[in-house]
Amino acid sequence: MGEFELIRRYFQPIADSLPSGALMLGPGDDCAIQRIPADHDLVFSIDTVVEGIHFPEAFPADHLAWRALAAAASDLAAMGAEPVCFTLALTFPAADEQWLSDFARGLADAARTFRLSLAGGDTTRGPLTLSLQVHGTVPRGTGIRRSGAQVGDLICVSGTLGDAGAALDYLDEQQPSDDAKAVLKRYHHPCPRLELGQALAGIATSAIDISDGLLADLGHVLEASGAGATIDLSTVPLSPALRRLKGDQALGFGLRAGDDYELCVTIPPSRWSSVPEAIGQHLTVIGAIEAESGLRLTGGSAKIDDAGTGFDHFRRES
Amino acid sequence: MGEFELIRRYFQPIADSLPSGALMLGPGDDCAIQRIPADHDLVFSIDTVVEGIHFPEAFPADHLAWRALAAAASDLAAMGAEPVCFTLALTFPAADEQWLSDFARGLADAARTFRLSLAGGDTTRGPLTLSLQVHGTVPRGTGIRRSGAQVGDLICVSGTLGDAGAALDYLDEQQPSDDAKAVLKRYHHPCPRLELGQALAGIATSAIDISDGLLADLGHVLEASGAGATIDLSTVPLSPALRRLKGDQALGFGLRAGDDYELCVTIPPSRWSSVPEAIGQHLTVIGAIEAESGLRLTGGSAKIDDAGTGFDHFRRES
Repeated sequence: MGEFELIRRYFQPIADSLPSGALMLGPGDDCAIQRIPADHDLVFSIDTVVEGIHFPEAFPADHLAWRALAAAASDLAAMGAEPVCFTLALTFPAADEQWLSDFARGLADAARTFRLSLAGGDTTRGPLTLSLQVHGTVPRGTGIRRSGAQVGDLICVSGTLGDAGAALDYLDEQQPSDDAKAVLKRYHHPCPRLELGQALAGIATSAIDISDGLLADLGHVLEASGAGATIDLSTVPLSPALRRLKGDQALGFGLRAGDDYELCVTIPPSRWSSVPEAIGQHLTVIGAIEAESGLRLTGGSAKIDDAGTGFDHFRRES
Repeated sequence: MGEFELIRRYFQPIADSLPSGALMLGPGDDCAIQRIPADHDLVFSIDTVVEGIHFPEAFPADHLAWRALAAAASDLAAMGAEPVCFTLALTFPAADEQWLSDFARGLADAARTFRLSLAGGDTTRGPLTLSLQVHGTVPRGTGIRRSGAQVGDLICVSGTLGDAGAALDYLDEQQPSDDAKAVLKRYHHPCPRLELGQALAGIATSAIDISDGLLADLGHVLEASGAGATIDLSTVPLSPALRRLKGDQALGFGLRAGDDYELCVTIPPSRWSSVPEAIGQHLTVIGAIEAESGLRLTGGSAKIDDAGTGFDHFRRES
């Protein structure tokens, strides 16, 4: 089965199932064409995942597709962008129809859920590798950057942290406990905070999605903003399942583990008091931005050495 | 050396060296931000090349970077788009500084030549694989599609065909002849027809870049346009070097070999007569679009069985 046949059979239906008014031309030509609304900017990001580095061998293809698109879409959430479309560069060893069918199903589910149309792509033979580029739009000037945090801003995170990282210990479990199932679900089916991100435009002074762990990602914000911070460890939101599974290591997962795809944002105190309940209910204040550089941890101590490793990101292995 | 250090040392200078007024935010945040001019559309394409499939092992890193960006940019040429920026997803086995330095040099050369700013990317560890997505713009509605060829249109190709494919036989030559050097240059340093493509907007009814060989790529145009064609083989433009190197196989390379990144376009006869010399001098008429489906070859015969294979595209191997 040739490249074109592959694309037609498994990917064209995904492109057809979610037509986007902004996509003037989809897969099948030399390029795709996207129309950006007047007074909006294009926002885009490319992400790669590699078998054996970012996910284990023989990883279920449907889960792989979902996770890869979720991770890419999470970068749109962190900019406060409205999702529009994506491209997929898929490299895989052989034309295994069952694998492709599973992959396409997972991709279609994720694309529909995140409202991202398939705009184009490339399929090549080689070691299993996916690169996805996601496109969104923001009203001009409203994209939330990492560099906007101001001294005095409150540091907030969405949801609970550490679950997906803890799930790595249970990937091969035949009969996982209910708690293990809960964290496994967050690993296999992460849900990027797309709606929350868009709602935070004009409210948050900076934002980042937590893909590498809270400490690492907050560090990027502090560096880009030229600021420091103090975090109150007792306020870092952890799920009951994570606390039961990991005991006194739970906080370490919350601080170091990635792949939850929650948001970490900074909000001036003056705005925080008037943040609508629909937004505020997803956020927990865990600290504040300070002029003194560096990150200070108060309110407890964490065993973080063993947390958040596994099939993960490049620099952790280097 | 971690991911961020790698990016900063080798890729940030490329981003900095060619600032684009359209790029509101470049590498280093969750997403990049591009502003599309009013009444223009975004045009984009993603391409992947894999070591051992699309290029040999131990391929010079600077040539690899140039070829990969040229191949991607060629898709912009085929749409008649003005180049703006690109993203790079680079997967490589280890942080080899010499390799990275060579790669970054080749990439910077190509980016400057093709006027493409580096907007962002992702670096991951794994088998050597590059995915590049290129972005361009076209005035609304002027993107040249594959589907616009009309019965009676002249079929034209730019430059000469087959050189890059023939070069595969000389990649390991220690002291290549002048003719071999000529075709090797076209393989290592292909120059996508970006200016010609833009000039053909409003003139050509369809366009495709010849990356898979004339017969294959013209076939895509015919299929998309619901038409057939006759090609006069005696008119297919071949370089003197290719004729001398390959003798009676030269035409086969011209028809089947890819990687020259010339354009194949269709132009109504009424427009062809008034095409400016600055455009027409790059084009050769090789046939015409017909209502009867299928591709008919007249004016000679070609030995094409052995031509155009080698390190090439996925479907040729499947």
